[in-house]
Amino acid sequence: MNEKEFLAAYNKGNFEAPLLTVDAVLFTYQDGQLKVLLVERSNHPEQGKWALPGGFISESEDKTLEDTVTRKLKEKTGVVPPYVEQLATFGGASRDQRGWSVTICYTALIAHQACESELETISDVAWLPIEKVKKMNLAFDHLKIINRAHERLIQKALYSIIPAYALPKKFTLPELQQVHEVIIGKPLQKKSFRRRIEQADLLINTGKKRTERGRPAALYSLRPGSGKHTFVRNLEQ
Amino acid sequence: MNEKEFLAAYNKGNFEAPLLTVDAVLFTYQDGQLKVLLVERSNHPEQGKWALPGGFISESEDKTLEDTVTRKLKEKTGVVPPYVEQLATFGGASRDQRGWSVTICYTALIAHQACESELETISDVAWLPIEKVKKMNLAFDHLKIINRAHERLIQKALYSIIPAYALPKKFTLPELQQVHEVIIGKPLQKKSFRRRIEQADLLINTGKKRTERGRPAALYSLRPGSGKHTFVRNLEQ
Repeated sequence: MNEKEFLAAYNKGNFEAPLLTVDAVLFTYQDGQLKVLLVERSNHPEQGKWALPGGFISESEDKTLEDTVTRKLKEKTGVVPPYVEQLATFGGASRDQRGWSVTICYTALIAHQACESELETISDVAWLPIEKVKKMNLAFDHLKIINRAHERLIQKALYSIIPAYALPKKFTLPELQQVHEVIIGKPLQKKSFRRRIEQADLLINTGKKRTERGRPAALYSLRPGSGKHTFVRNLEQ
Repeated sequence: MNEKEFLAAYNKGNFEAPLLTVDAVLFTYQDGQLKVLLVERSNHPEQGKWALPGGFISESEDKTLEDTVTRKLKEKTGVVPPYVEQLATFGGASRDQRGWSVTICYTALIAHQACESELETISDVAWLPIEKVKKMNLAFDHLKIINRAHERLIQKALYSIIPAYALPKKFTLPELQQVHEVIIGKPLQKKSFRRRIEQADLLINTGKKRTERGRPAALYSLRPGSGKHTFVRNLEQ
């Protein structure tokens, strides 16, 4: 049998295969809090529990794994992130009652976008504060996945200005520092925070100002490529 | 229908699912070269091409994804790494002629172990020098996966003493420096390399010596946990 004949005869449906899904951990910053995007499950299993938005790959609609993430987020939440990054893949015999299962997880930190469910199968969708989420009884191993994504985000907030992605395009330095502090969970020294960011030349001063606490504060935007810069020492030091 | 009834009626075989495999990029250091473990495919598709060792999850034999990696490596190569780390998951509609497919990839750097194929389905298995591999026409997208694993390994060699995992338990400092240099692909300054490693207190002097180039060189071993230490600046600086 040559390869052509082999492929013509091959039917992957003949082989046992684990359940395979894609899930997303989206973070945003709103009302002074770090929030995670969750959906309430309207179907079995784990009906009624909150879970990460995600779902099955569609072999006809998706060309890549990122296509699946984007499509599922759009369908289930209405939130469309400008980028997603692969977090890790979680799998095993006991994480889903339906059987051996694998989920490929993506994550992103984005500026706040309103949620809207396009499908009736989702009872509810919401941005929930991470501190509240960590005390909830989520579906499957989704809390473990969120914790992993949060750890990675903290590392990014310590070593880069990726937290700026959670802000509108123009922001003030106090706003930026606050997002860093909320993600890291600790206050940072204003002086050294500003010096580190200035030295690295990561921001553009837009020349505009906004009044904050009675004083005019300069509005900045992110210089293209700044998200890739990593500080040699973390921002706490 | 309650959850119990739902689960009793659920048959995941009724749903279309992509091909799902696990692959491993194992590196070792031998004869002054960085080498990758590859197998020659004896079956369709891509018969006769060299590929990463890996294969399908067995729902009855494996409890975790790491179980699958270890089992497949043992069956196909006889090489059993002391640890594996998840690299990334690669998937899409066009990476495998059999259809939509996903592979979860693991990587490790290990001391050299002899290969031995336990299965007749593998025509050949070998540690091949990375420079040679990068010029080969490998199966599927395996060259892309190897390149990604190599990039991560270079970062580790710049920021940690993980390269020591490729050496026998007792090694000399010139040996350690050479592994770093071979992985990074550039020479390092002996003085600063030694100072950085001494300052971080990562090695134990075993008190034994071996004669190298006519001079006795102290034999060291890795202090437990040293693999987790990351240098604040990379070893080239």
